[in-house]
Amino acid sequence: MIIPKSILPKLEVRLASLPRIFLFVVCVALAAQAQTDPLPSWNSGPAKQAILNFVHTTTDQANSNYVPPEERFATFDQDGTIWVEHPMYTQMVFAFARVKELAPQHPEWKTTQPFSAILAGDVAAMQKFTPKDFEAIFVATHTGMTVEAFQSMAKEWLASAKDQRWHRPYTELIYEPMLEVMRYLRANGYKTYIVTGGGQDFVRVFSDQVYGVPPEQVIGSAVETQYAYDAAGKGVLMRPPKLLLNNNFSGKPEDIYLFIGRHPKAAFGNSTGDQQMLEYTQAGSGATLEMIVLHDDAQREYAYGPAEGLPNSAIGTFTQALYDEAKSRGWFVISMKNDWKRIFAWEK
Amino acid sequence: MIIPKSILPKLEVRLASLPRIFLFVVCVALAAQAQTDPLPSWNSGPAKQAILNFVHTTTDQANSNYVPPEERFATFDQDGTIWVEHPMYTQMVFAFARVKELAPQHPEWKTTQPFSAILAGDVAAMQKFTPKDFEAIFVATHTGMTVEAFQSMAKEWLASAKDQRWHRPYTELIYEPMLEVMRYLRANGYKTYIVTGGGQDFVRVFSDQVYGVPPEQVIGSAVETQYAYDAAGKGVLMRPPKLLLNNNFSGKPEDIYLFIGRHPKAAFGNSTGDQQMLEYTQAGSGATLEMIVLHDDAQREYAYGPAEGLPNSAIGTFTQALYDEAKSRGWFVISMKNDWKRIFAWEK
Repeated sequence: MIIPKSILPKLEVRLASLPRIFLFVVCVALAAQAQTDPLPSWNSGPAKQAILNFVHTTTDQANSNYVPPEERFATFDQDGTIWVEHPMYTQMVFAFARVKELAPQHPEWKTTQPFSAILAGDVAAMQKFTPKDFEAIFVATHTGMTVEAFQSMAKEWLASAKDQRWHRPYTELIYEPMLEVMRYLRANGYKTYIVTGGGQDFVRVFSDQVYGVPPEQVIGSAVETQYAYDAAGKGVLMRPPKLLLNNNFSGKPEDIYLFIGRHPKAAFGNSTGDQQMLEYTQAGSGATLEMIVLHDDAQREYAYGPAEGLPNSAIGTFTQALYDEAKSRGWFVISMKNDWKRIFAWEK
Repeated sequence: MIIPKSILPKLEVRLASLPRIFLFVVCVALAAQAQTDPLPSWNSGPAKQAILNFVHTTTDQANSNYVPPEERFATFDQDGTIWVEHPMYTQMVFAFARVKELAPQHPEWKTTQPFSAILAGDVAAMQKFTPKDFEAIFVATHTGMTVEAFQSMAKEWLASAKDQRWHRPYTELIYEPMLEVMRYLRANGYKTYIVTGGGQDFVRVFSDQVYGVPPEQVIGSAVETQYAYDAAGKGVLMRPPKLLLNNNFSGKPEDIYLFIGRHPKAAFGNSTGDQQMLEYTQAGSGATLEMIVLHDDAQREYAYGPAEGLPNSAIGTFTQALYDEAKSRGWFVISMKNDWKRIFAWEK
């Protein structure tokens, strides 16, 4: 908040009549407000301004677009929106690593696709994997165990695995500007949810520590679980190979409704897989905020999507059509190159 | 807290040396503690004591069974546990009312079961309804509209409908002692969830106002929703006639895991439909609390279950077997007759 110089004398006169302690409190509050930028990793520009405006508008009781605290929900896609998704989804890297780990128990995989391609590191073959191939990999690596056993596997892998480019744990490949948005929203009474096409159970293993988002605020693709009894008669939940929620495209608004029961007020994505979530957010009443992250920074991260003419995929990517829809609907496109001062917390 | 008279003079001497304002604060705090019973509608007894012990144990950092705030979850069945379910589930009364309301648009219902029985008020026929009949009623009354249209219908009906015995809105047939437990748990950092075999969307319409439980903390049976576009190109969610979650029996722990991702620390139910939820709660680590409400008060509410030898139903009821399991597992049985001083807030 900047106070125009012209009103300072007037303010001084009025303040002079107030008790000293109150004056002190007012000064501290004004100083704090003047100095604190809730989004320090953002460059000034329409994207940053849109976030600030949205929060001011919806938390100001005098504003016609005021949103009561119990209705403040903001949803964030994960892959490509709050952490790196290129060149391969982290959960896919995990699945491939699991295949290698499980291989000794499956000698037949040496000669069976898609497993043989993974074991041989045959990139050309992997790039031709069909949805059926991915399903087979998923069933072999993500199902057939208790939910706790799966959580342990994911936790263990995440603790040791490192990405090929930065040689850091995947849980450090988080976009600092988006963490700032999450914190800023939470500081203003918003509940932040992750709404990911990735596996709900996988993301819940680290969401609280990494994003400050507790497990119950992670909505993702999910297998059915099956209640059973272990040898001691204790109730356990198994993971059978049956998909319950496919949290992509239309699945996102459908599952948001299932979990939250209402429209989010703000939504952040980066691909056609998020398009329906953004539409659904905008379809709610009052002021809303929709933003998509454009990966246009090959130097600091990656450049793909409309700029590079990359093809659409089964999971969704940032197509030219999405870019055009964003423009026509008034969604904000976040340019990683121009809007973000830094991308990762550990950057100099 | 009661201070034995013998120590009062000692206390007085010590207090005399303290500054006056501090003395005042201490006195107010002691008085408040002495007077406040968080469960005033409960008679003293093992059930009340179990709740108090559980909260003390799990919120005391010095206790080995301390539960950190982020893991404090308590789940409550609805029908028969926190509101009246007898002689018919409220949502079923709503469905029957909807059949009557929709009848003019369905002249064929006059001669088609199960609708004709409802329209004719044929209780004998209604008592013979099969699961297929209930499904037909459910499809006709609960599906085929947008989620908002369904919410409006439910809200409207709940605002005007009254029960036959007390002539009060159904949302006043809430067990005050259980509301006290919910409030007491929340005051101690627990998140309270409703985990109901009833429809998630139906309960979400009034859960916040009636129980202080926001929509996102209601887990219930749910139809799939289907994302579509209205004539103006706006994204809407439709309710097709397809069940996604059947939140009864094993469905309860499965759906609790889907929504929350962990074991509750406390669970409250009243029927075999809640048994697996209670088992799953107990299967978690540390101190847990499992309680089942026994309807043994024909005068103030209803008496049914083991005392009355009522048969088991598809939805679940309080059978002798459940009573025996409760005893063998150390679950607490709440006797409405003996443990509850009053049942409804509006009782004298």
